[in-house]
Amino acid sequence: MSQGIQRNSEVIFQRNTHFLSTAANLVPRLQQSHCAAVSLVKAVADASQVHGWRTEICGAPASLANRELAAGEEIVVDFGMHCVGYFGLRCEAAGSPPDAPAHLQFIFGETPAEVAEPFSDYDGWLSSSWLQQEDIYLDVLPELVRLPRRYCCRYVKIKVISTSAKFTLRLSDIHLTTVTSADPSTLVSLNHPDALLEHIDQVSVLTLRNCMQDVFEDGPKRDRRLWLGDLRLQAQVNYQTYGQNDLVRRCLYLFAGVTREDGMVSSNLFMKPDVIADDTFLLDYALFFVATLADYVAATDDLTTLNDLWPTALRQIELALERVGENGILRDSEDWWAFIDWHESLNKQAPAQGVLIYCLKKGLELAQRCDHDKVTGLNQQIRYLDAAARRELWDEEKGFFVSGAQRQISCASQVWLVLAGVGENALRARVMSNLLRTQPETGMNTPYMMHHFIDALISVGETGRAVQEIKKYWGGMVQAGADTFWELYDPKRPGFSPYGSKLINSYCHAWSCTPAYFIRKYGL
Amino acid sequence: MSQGIQRNSEVIFQRNTHFLSTAANLVPRLQQSHCAAVSLVKAVADASQVHGWRTEICGAPASLANRELAAGEEIVVDFGMHCVGYFGLRCEAAGSPPDAPAHLQFIFGETPAEVAEPFSDYDGWLSSSWLQQEDIYLDVLPELVRLPRRYCCRYVKIKVISTSAKFTLRLSDIHLTTVTSADPSTLVSLNHPDALLEHIDQVSVLTLRNCMQDVFEDGPKRDRRLWLGDLRLQAQVNYQTYGQNDLVRRCLYLFAGVTREDGMVSSNLFMKPDVIADDTFLLDYALFFVATLADYVAATDDLTTLNDLWPTALRQIELALERVGENGILRDSEDWWAFIDWHESLNKQAPAQGVLIYCLKKGLELAQRCDHDKVTGLNQQIRYLDAAARRELWDEEKGFFVSGAQRQISCASQVWLVLAGVGENALRARVMSNLLRTQPETGMNTPYMMHHFIDALISVGETGRAVQEIKKYWGGMVQAGADTFWELYDPKRPGFSPYGSKLINSYCHAWSCTPAYFIRKYGL
Repeated sequence: MSQGIQRNSEVIFQRNTHFLSTAANLVPRLQQSHCAAVSLVKAVADASQVHGWRTEICGAPASLANRELAAGEEIVVDFGMHCVGYFGLRCEAAGSPPDAPAHLQFIFGETPAEVAEPFSDYDGWLSSSWLQQEDIYLDVLPELVRLPRRYCCRYVKIKVISTSAKFTLRLSDIHLTTVTSADPSTLVSLNHPDALLEHIDQVSVLTLRNCMQDVFEDGPKRDRRLWLGDLRLQAQVNYQTYGQNDLVRRCLYLFAGVTREDGMVSSNLFMKPDVIADDTFLLDYALFFVATLADYVAATDDLTTLNDLWPTALRQIELALERVGENGILRDSEDWWAFIDWHESLNKQAPAQGVLIYCLKKGLELAQRCDHDKVTGLNQQIRYLDAAARRELWDEEKGFFVSGAQRQISCASQVWLVLAGVGENALRARVMSNLLRTQPETGMNTPYMMHHFIDALISVGETGRAVQEIKKYWGGMVQAGADTFWELYDPKRPGFSPYGSKLINSYCHAWSCTPAYFIRKYGL
Repeated sequence: MSQGIQRNSEVIFQRNTHFLSTAANLVPRLQQSHCAAVSLVKAVADASQVHGWRTEICGAPASLANRELAAGEEIVVDFGMHCVGYFGLRCEAAGSPPDAPAHLQFIFGETPAEVAEPFSDYDGWLSSSWLQQEDIYLDVLPELVRLPRRYCCRYVKIKVISTSAKFTLRLSDIHLTTVTSADPSTLVSLNHPDALLEHIDQVSVLTLRNCMQDVFEDGPKRDRRLWLGDLRLQAQVNYQTYGQNDLVRRCLYLFAGVTREDGMVSSNLFMKPDVIADDTFLLDYALFFVATLADYVAATDDLTTLNDLWPTALRQIELALERVGENGILRDSEDWWAFIDWHESLNKQAPAQGVLIYCLKKGLELAQRCDHDKVTGLNQQIRYLDAAARRELWDEEKGFFVSGAQRQISCASQVWLVLAGVGENALRARVMSNLLRTQPETGMNTPYMMHHFIDALISVGETGRAVQEIKKYWGGMVQAGADTFWELYDPKRPGFSPYGSKLINSYCHAWSCTPAYFIRKYGL
C-alpha cells in the first residue's frame, strides 16, 4: 500500500538547540498508580460483538492463591479498564523444589480478541513486534516478576508454557503500575444530563489520559509516538479537560527543534534514544504545526512561544505553497504526500487544498499577533486558493467538491473544503446537507476523519446532527465495550484494519478522543 | 519412565547452620573472560555426523558491519569452543529511524543440532524450558543487549523475527562473558605423547572447568545443579587437575547442611534462592557422600572436615544397611531407589550391592582415622555383604553376577561388584574378561557408567584395555567434534536420550569428564 510508507533515510535534518532544550525543560512528571487485576475472565466467541469476542468472569484473582497452574494451563486477567503501565506479579512454585526453569508467556490485549486469537496467525504489513507479548524463563522461584517494557492493556493472558513434572506455579499480586502525565486534579467532571454523552466524555478523557506520557503519544500500544496530526486534536481536547498546556508547548518545541534541511517539520518524532525526526513528511501534518500553534496561542496567549515558533510555522506555509500549481490547486501525486485519512483509494488533492486554506487562516491569526508584514500576503494567498478551489474543484451539478484527475467525490473533500470556509455559508451548508443525504462512494475510514466531519457539521450550524453522529459513532464504540476510543472503527466493517489485522490496531488512540472537545467546547 | 522422577514434597528436612555457614564461607570467586564470536557458520545436514549436522564457516563476525538483517533473516555465530556465560551484542538500526520494536530471537546450542532443528518439535518429558532460547523486543535502538540469564553454548542462532519495512538491523560485538570458578593458573598441562589422549584430556578439563561454578554443577546447560553422583567424579578429576579442594569441601558441607529428617542426604541440591535439598533420594548417591568424603580426606588430610562430616557419612551407611534383607542382599523394588545408570530396564539390586560394599570400604578408611570404635563393625558388615553377594548373586555357570528376581545379567552388576572387590582377584579378572568378550544384553548407557567400567578394568589390571576403551568411547566423542564431553553418548544410537530428544541432552556434563582423572592418576 503506497500510503503506508515513506523511506527517506538520506534526508538531512537540522537541530535547534534552544528549542530542544526548552522542550527538555518541559518534560512532565509521570503519575504512577497501582492497579490490581480485578477478575479472571475467559474470552468467548460471540459473533454479535464487534471484534467477535466477549469476556465472561470466571473467578477472582484471589482464587489463584489456591490454584496450581501446570504446564499448558492459562488464565486471563481483567484489569477492569484500559491501562498503560508496567506489569508485575509474584510467581512461586508448588510441589517439589523447582528442578527446571519456569517458562511463562504473557499476552497483553486492549481487547478480548487479542487474548483470544493467536498472534501466530498475524500476517499484516505492520511489524508483528507491535503485538504485545513476552516469554520469560524464571530460573529461581519464588520471583517477583516485573517486566521492563511498558504495555497497554485491559486483559493479560498468562500461560504456563513449561515447568517440570515435579512442580506447578502459583501466581499472585498480578498488577500494573500505570503511568500517565495527566494530572487528575486539574480535570473537572462533565456531569452531563445525557448518560451516553457523559459516558462518551469519560471514555474520551481516559483515551487522552492514557496517551499523555512523556509527550502526547498517538497510541500507547502503537505507535507510542508524537504525531503532529494527533497532537493537534489532543491539544484541543486538553484545553477542555486537563489544561496541561505546557505539554502542548513541549511538543511544539520538539517539532520545531528537529526539521528537515529546508525547514519542513516531520510528521512524527521519536523521543529515544534522543529526539529524532522521522523521515516521513506529509503536507497536511506539516501544516498542522501552524494550526496547533494557533490553537495553543489562542488558549494561552503565550507570546514568547509564538515569537519563537512563528518562523517554523511560516516555513510550513511557504513549503506547502510551493506545491500549488498554476491553477491555484495543490499538485496531485500517487505517493503518500498527504495523510487526510487511512484510505487506499482516497484522492488527496481537494482535501489537502482544504487543509492548506484552513491552516493559512490559522497562520493569518498568528501573523496578526506577531508579524504584521505577512498579513496582506497571507490574505491574498487565502483568497487566491479559495477562489481556485471554488473554480476548479466545485461541481455544481453534483453539489460536491471533486478531487483529482478522476474528479473523485469523497467525504474528505467536502469536509476539508467546508472547514476551510470555501464558498459562501449557504454553499457549505448545502455541501454538508448533501453529504448527510447521499454517502459518496469514497467514505471515511477513521475516527480522525470523523472528527473533521463533526467539526464541519458544527461549522455550518448542524449542532444537533453533530451530537447525533457522535452518539452513533463514538457511542457505538462505547456500546461495543470500549474503555478508550479506537484507532479504527467502522460499524459496517468490524474487523477493518489498514494494516491487515485487527489485532495490530490500536484501541486507545489519540485521534479518537475528541468527543470531549466537542461536548465541552460547544456545550453539546 | 519410573526412573525419571520422585515427588516427595512432604519430606521434612533439617538444616545444620554450622555446616551451611562453613559452605557459605567457601563460595568461590568466579573468573570472567570476554569471548568474542569467531565465525559465522551455517548448519548443514550430514548423516555421517553423530547428531546429523555439521557446520560450515560462511563468514567472519566482522562482516556483519556491512550486513543489514531484515525480518526473517538469521545468522549463526560460532564461539569456536564450548562456553558458559552471559551473552551480549550491539544492535543498531539501518535505514529510517526504527518505527517499531525490533523482535529478535536467540537460540543457544552446545551442538549444531540445537541451532539447526526447531525447538518447536521437542516433545520429550523433561521441561522444554531447558531449551535455551530468548525472545527480546528492543523498543529503542541502538541498544547494547546483555541477556540476564547464563547460557551454555558454542553456537548462537540470532534471528530477526520482525522489524518494520523502514529499517533493518546491524549487529556487532557479539560476545559472551564466560564464567567459571576454575583457576587456570593451578592447572598443569598434560603434554601427552599420544595426541588423542592429549586431546581427550583437554576436553575433559574443559568439561570440568565449565561445570565449576558456584558449586560443581552436573551440567551448565541442564540441570545446573549439584548432584552427588557427579560431584564424586568431578572431585576425582579436580584432584588431578585444578586441585581446588575447597570447592569439594564446600559441596560436602552443603550436602551435610540440609538432610532429610532421618539424616539421609539428598541426591542433589539447589543453590537459589537458598540452599535447598531436592526431594529425590537415591541409595547409591547417598552412599557416595561417604566415598566423596573419603577421597577428599585422602587428597587433603583435612581432619577438621572429616570430624565434622563423619557422622553424616556414617548415617548414610546406617540407612543403606536398613535396606539389607535377611539374605544379606539389598531389597529390590520397581521404583527409582538407586540410579546406577540411565537405563529403563536395568535391575539395580546387584550393582547397588556393589556400591554399598564399595562405600562401606570407604567408610572403613574414614573410621580408621576418626572413629576406631566403628572399625570392627564395619569390617564385619563388609565381610557379611561380600559373602552374601558371592553366594546370592554369583552365577558360576554364566560367569557373571546376576541381579533381581529375573537374574538379569548387566554390565552394571559386573562393574560394581568388581569395584566392590567381591570375590578373589582371579574371579574379578574373569568377570571383566567375560564382560569384554560377551556383551550382556543389558549394557551401559552413559559416560557415567562407562567411567565405572574403566575403573573396574583398571582395578583388575587391564590398563591397556582401559586406554583402548577410553580412546574408543571418549575419543569417539572427540572425533565427533565434542569440545566438552556429553551427558549421553552411544555410538550405536547417536540420537539416544533418556529424555525423549537429543536436543535436551546436556553436552557438557560433569560425569563425562573423567578421562583426565584416569590418564593423569594412572599415567595412562
